[in-house]
Amino acid sequence: MFKYVKAIVILILLVLGAQLVSGQVPSDSVSTGIDAVETVQAGGFASYEDFQSSPDFTAFIVDNLWVLLSAFLVFIMHLGFASVESGMNASKNTVSVIYKNLFTLCAGLITYAIVGFSLMYPGDFNIIPGFLGFGGFGIGYDAASPADYLTSNYYESYTIWTDFLFQAMFAATAATIISGAVAGRIKMPSYMLYAAIIVTFAYPITGSWQWGGGWLSELGFHDFAGSTLVHAVGGAAALVGAWALGPRIGKYGADGQVNDMPGHSFPLATIGVFLLWFGWFGFNGGSVLSADPAAISLVLVNTALAAAAGSLAAMATATFTVHKLDATQALNGVLAGLVGITAGADAVMPGQAIVIGALSGVLVVLAVIGIDKLKIDDPVSAIAVHLVCGIWGTLAVGIWGDGKSFQAQLIGTASIVAFTLVVSYIAVMIVKTTLGLRSTEEVELGGADAAYHGNAAYPDFAQAST
Amino acid sequence: MFKYVKAIVILILLVLGAQLVSGQVPSDSVSTGIDAVETVQAGGFASYEDFQSSPDFTAFIVDNLWVLLSAFLVFIMHLGFASVESGMNASKNTVSVIYKNLFTLCAGLITYAIVGFSLMYPGDFNIIPGFLGFGGFGIGYDAASPADYLTSNYYESYTIWTDFLFQAMFAATAATIISGAVAGRIKMPSYMLYAAIIVTFAYPITGSWQWGGGWLSELGFHDFAGSTLVHAVGGAAALVGAWALGPRIGKYGADGQVNDMPGHSFPLATIGVFLLWFGWFGFNGGSVLSADPAAISLVLVNTALAAAAGSLAAMATATFTVHKLDATQALNGVLAGLVGITAGADAVMPGQAIVIGALSGVLVVLAVIGIDKLKIDDPVSAIAVHLVCGIWGTLAVGIWGDGKSFQAQLIGTASIVAFTLVVSYIAVMIVKTTLGLRSTEEVELGGADAAYHGNAAYPDFAQAST
Amino acid sequence: MFKYVKAIVILILLVLGAQLVSGQVPSDSVSTGIDAVETVQAGGFASYEDFQSSPDFTAFIVDNLWVLLSAFLVFIMHLGFASVESGMNASKNTVSVIYKNLFTLCAGLITYAIVGFSLMYPGDFNIIPGFLGFGGFGIGYDAASPADYLTSNYYESYTIWTDFLFQAMFAATAATIISGAVAGRIKMPSYMLYAAIIVTFAYPITGSWQWGGGWLSELGFHDFAGSTLVHAVGGAAALVGAWALGPRIGKYGADGQVNDMPGHSFPLATIGVFLLWFGWFGFNGGSVLSADPAAISLVLVNTALAAAAGSLAAMATATFTVHKLDATQALNGVLAGLVGITAGADAVMPGQAIVIGALSGVLVVLAVIGIDKLKIDDPVSAIAVHLVCGIWGTLAVGIWGDGKSFQAQLIGTASIVAFTLVVSYIAVMIVKTTLGLRSTEEVELGGADAAYHGNAAYPDFAQAST
Repeated sequence: MFKYVKAIVILILLVLGAQLVSGQVPSDSVSTGIDAVETVQAGGFASYEDFQSSPDFTAFIVDNLWVLLSAFLVFIMHLGFASVESGMNASKNTVSVIYKNLFTLCAGLITYAIVGFSLMYPGDFNIIPGFLGFGGFGIGYDAASPADYLTSNYYESYTIWTDFLFQAMFAATAATIISGAVAGRIKMPSYMLYAAIIVTFAYPITGSWQWGGGWLSELGFHDFAGSTLVHAVGGAAALVGAWALGPRIGKYGADGQVNDMPGHSFPLATIGVFLLWFGWFGFNGGSVLSADPAAISLVLVNTALAAAAGSLAAMATATFTVHKLDATQALNGVLAGLVGITAGADAVMPGQAIVIGALSGVLVVLAVIGIDKLKIDDPVSAIAVHLVCGIWGTLAVGIWGDGKSFQAQLIGTASIVAFTLVVSYIAVMIVKTTLGLRSTEEVELGGADAAYHGNAAYPDFAQAST
Repeated sequence: MFKYVKAIVILILLVLGAQLVSGQVPSDSVSTGIDAVETVQAGGFASYEDFQSSPDFTAFIVDNLWVLLSAFLVFIMHLGFASVESGMNASKNTVSVIYKNLFTLCAGLITYAIVGFSLMYPGDFNIIPGFLGFGGFGIGYDAASPADYLTSNYYESYTIWTDFLFQAMFAATAATIISGAVAGRIKMPSYMLYAAIIVTFAYPITGSWQWGGGWLSELGFHDFAGSTLVHAVGGAAALVGAWALGPRIGKYGADGQVNDMPGHSFPLATIGVFLLWFGWFGFNGGSVLSADPAAISLVLVNTALAAAAGSLAAMATATFTVHKLDATQALNGVLAGLVGITAGADAVMPGQAIVIGALSGVLVVLAVIGIDKLKIDDPVSAIAVHLVCGIWGTLAVGIWGDGKSFQAQLIGTASIVAFTLVVSYIAVMIVKTTLGLRSTEEVELGGADAAYHGNAAYPDFAQAST
Repeated sequence: MFKYVKAIVILILLVLGAQLVSGQVPSDSVSTGIDAVETVQAGGFASYEDFQSSPDFTAFIVDNLWVLLSAFLVFIMHLGFASVESGMNASKNTVSVIYKNLFTLCAGLITYAIVGFSLMYPGDFNIIPGFLGFGGFGIGYDAASPADYLTSNYYESYTIWTDFLFQAMFAATAATIISGAVAGRIKMPSYMLYAAIIVTFAYPITGSWQWGGGWLSELGFHDFAGSTLVHAVGGAAALVGAWALGPRIGKYGADGQVNDMPGHSFPLATIGVFLLWFGWFGFNGGSVLSADPAAISLVLVNTALAAAAGSLAAMATATFTVHKLDATQALNGVLAGLVGITAGADAVMPGQAIVIGALSGVLVVLAVIGIDKLKIDDPVSAIAVHLVCGIWGTLAVGIWGDGKSFQAQLIGTASIVAFTLVVSYIAVMIVKTTLGLRSTEEVELGGADAAYHGNAAYPDFAQAST
């Protein structure tokens, strides 16, 4: 019954989206459309031809290319998330985790085209100035009045299509962080609705506070590529989801012990972490929003060194806590270092990046233990990695960042996390009331793959445990 | 016995290829060779030094770099194909499927260097003008007469080496589409011969009709990056192969029911699909043949939105047909959307890309059912994805493409598909007569890996079913 | 007990590293730091502003971007190594192999920042001129005296951060080659110490002989991207490690027969090889150290064709030796071709690249057999691929390379390999004396994953063999 409803909703959404987006298209021709976009970019130039013949145009080509390449790299992070989250969960939930990530990416791209981009970069179309605005449905290009175009006043180094693609890939990362944390026990349709609400509304609104020129950017808050705006937002939504669901059956014993429920494929998780690191070069490097040589190369060195230091520190810390060479924590350490450096990659020097990354690596190991003590079950450590290290990284900018205010960092981080927690709580309550939140015990024990997808991830192989 | 023959043939081919290609090399020096190539590129400039000191040179650097980066991305699609095709087949045929993809890529690169590139871009060396030409063996650079160089008249933004590399990576994709569709029952040497014929002759010849300046380009046919020229060609060859082989043992019941023969690793298939999407940014984006900011960014937004819409539409459609959240169809939907937008990514606006992608996603789910009804067994849905959606995408350009003719689209698609079906049929008959086509029942049941490669894909793991 | 020592050492190293690197940071601001770096780049220009407004600046942006993108590609080779090495080993050692690769990458990046970069590019800070120098701890940027900066005299196309990142990614590849060859029987802490010595000292010192402007560069030795400087160095260290350890239990029978101990996942190994090929486009292409169109495109065509020819030749050769379509040798052939062309990718034409690659593919298959005859157990064929083909590729430059001296190639290759063998022997002896080298029989049979990491790679799946 429900599945028909859902299918119809998706089809209506698609048709609606297509109409909304294509409604923006001038009727005459694609070429005219492109010319108009190009004229918008040209800024001070009388025409696109004038811009093309100026010496500035070649730098524009390179800058635009770099931001597009960065969008590809952020795209491949979605395979990274799908791999690490499925690898760190049981094989009986593998298809389900991947389906979630794919759905989140695809729905995120489409909803961002319809409402997200315009919510996040409202330009002068304010509802509550600095807090909420909306520039209209669609990617927002309106050939009739290019001068009014919502983003024309803040970008100079790339076309509007490039801007949209890079930002859309970012938006989907925030929401996909949720999927691993709630794996194994959430009803599939409930996840789909929850993730859609976060990616469509929560992420773009807090994003607009800083990157859309809102009140936090006025305050002097600095979150270069989104330790808080992306990662802590995703981590906070994951926390609310995991808390509301409760732990997987068998995770915490009656006498308080924490049972290890290992992921089913360490190589798959490894592929995911390396792809996330790879993609992070675009996530952070592309956030320079131009190919400025000094800026992007410093950002990328900081990114690489923080990741390396995070992993080494997590390896070392784990030898004190679990007394072994803990490979899962080594992977978590990479991600912790990356999340930690994301807010300040442009504002610190490499020695400081190593310190920030190393402390992230220590923190993530301790946070995993602490979150388990709270009996919040997070199979992929998304809360420790993205929320805890995201907050830490943003605050670290207030400590080491060149000319940054710790107070502004504190206000920015706290307000974004608080807002996301509240919205996530409301969203979870809506989902719980309408669709219900948690799978039945039978579904959980048998696995989400069989129950929702009728599809085993590895049908040829015998299970070691039943 | 045969294996020696094959080995000798391959060695002869290599030596021959090396001589043919190196025969083109001027005896004096590599540097001179490079200078001459560079002079060719320089076009109107008296010397390479003049070109280098002109303001146009920096744009040339960027354009050339972008096309090279695109070639890397198309390269990684080959890992995508290997992953998706092996993941969607049984574990007993995994090594074999991968061996096929690797062989197709490697043989394709070498044969394209020897004959393919020159067949596809014959310049003025016509045999049947507009239909068939051949510029000579080798990559075609001839220092003695750069003015005659076969591609000098149509490219301006990259070197001949770049041109070759990008086109060679394309050529190999068309042929590798076959390997998954015929998996599980084709004799390995037979596959190798069949794929070699397709990549060496069939693909370059139809390619020359459009991209080599042949009769279809004169007609006004528009196939931007190859919905038909690459994907429908590969899909048609796959259809002929799958039809000639017949279905795998046990696929279709005596009473007409279709038995599910699921792939052995859903994560492997997922990695493949994401890598294909990633690589498609180069496949479509690089087909602009320059780094023109407005053109590449629009193409890439269209590509991403069509893939997302394709997946969502396939998810939705599957809930009506198979009544579950069908994860395999969700993956197919991504590829369907990508194949569908490939012909017109430069000629439509994002709203239209969403519509084209979504309809591709609906179509692929229905086509999979329809092809099974015809008892044509295609383990990886290559025919539904590449042939059906390739045709659809090319025709869609005639509907929404800015100033395109539906009639030209119909003629172009029909003639290329028809030609490929005929050549594939002939090739299959040659293979059948000489080497035989189908593995013995014993080999099929025991798996191609053991029979041809003496190598299990996962020797450490117990099989669930025997 | 030991684990605490190790943890403390790692933490001290991190803190020390951070201080050393950040000690280089001017106290005033990041912006000033960036400006100073930029001024260094500007070369003949009075200020960075002057440079920016010159027509040369745009080419600098592109060149810098290309070297950074190449660094990303070399980075992903580390996932390639982790995948191919774990895929070619038993499932009981999978976590361990991956832990090694991740540790090597992370420790390599940090130690290269602290001492390696400065050892390899000492500038005028000589200890033994041409053989050994050291420019001081840290990445080496000193705002107080940019004119003295150690690398300012040899790079022109990228920033110092870019230079560091690209070179650091290279350094870690050399050391990570070891990890697969010694898998299954080395004590984990012993590996960690051994790899750290190689990446911190051995690789940068021989690297300085050629790329740091040392005696081999004076001699006319040509090793474009490191067939010897990277691959033979890693392969020689792998040889010493594998030889010192002895073979895995059961590899060689009492009566001289070689027992096949197949890797546990052919798809994982395949993913690794394709990613290595993908990354090699950056490894070789980035070694041009600018985006020069003719140079990079020729290098990349040579790289692709050598890889393809290597694989086809290995496929063919294997049909003569093992009489089957040996898929593992097909993968080895790709890597052999890549290693073989690395020394001369800029100095030969495509026809010659095919010959060099094809002969590498023949060589690797024969070398694998020969090394087994010597009872040196190398589970991943690292010695055959990286040492044998590395030497061959470097010598081949003396045969076909445009204006290169065979004698110089011989001297360079021999001296680097000899030095590395000696240093590796000393390092192995230090490790053996202090930590011991080989795991106990119990650990080896039970697997490194359980013993050192307490973590199975695939806990959900039943083992086929015990």
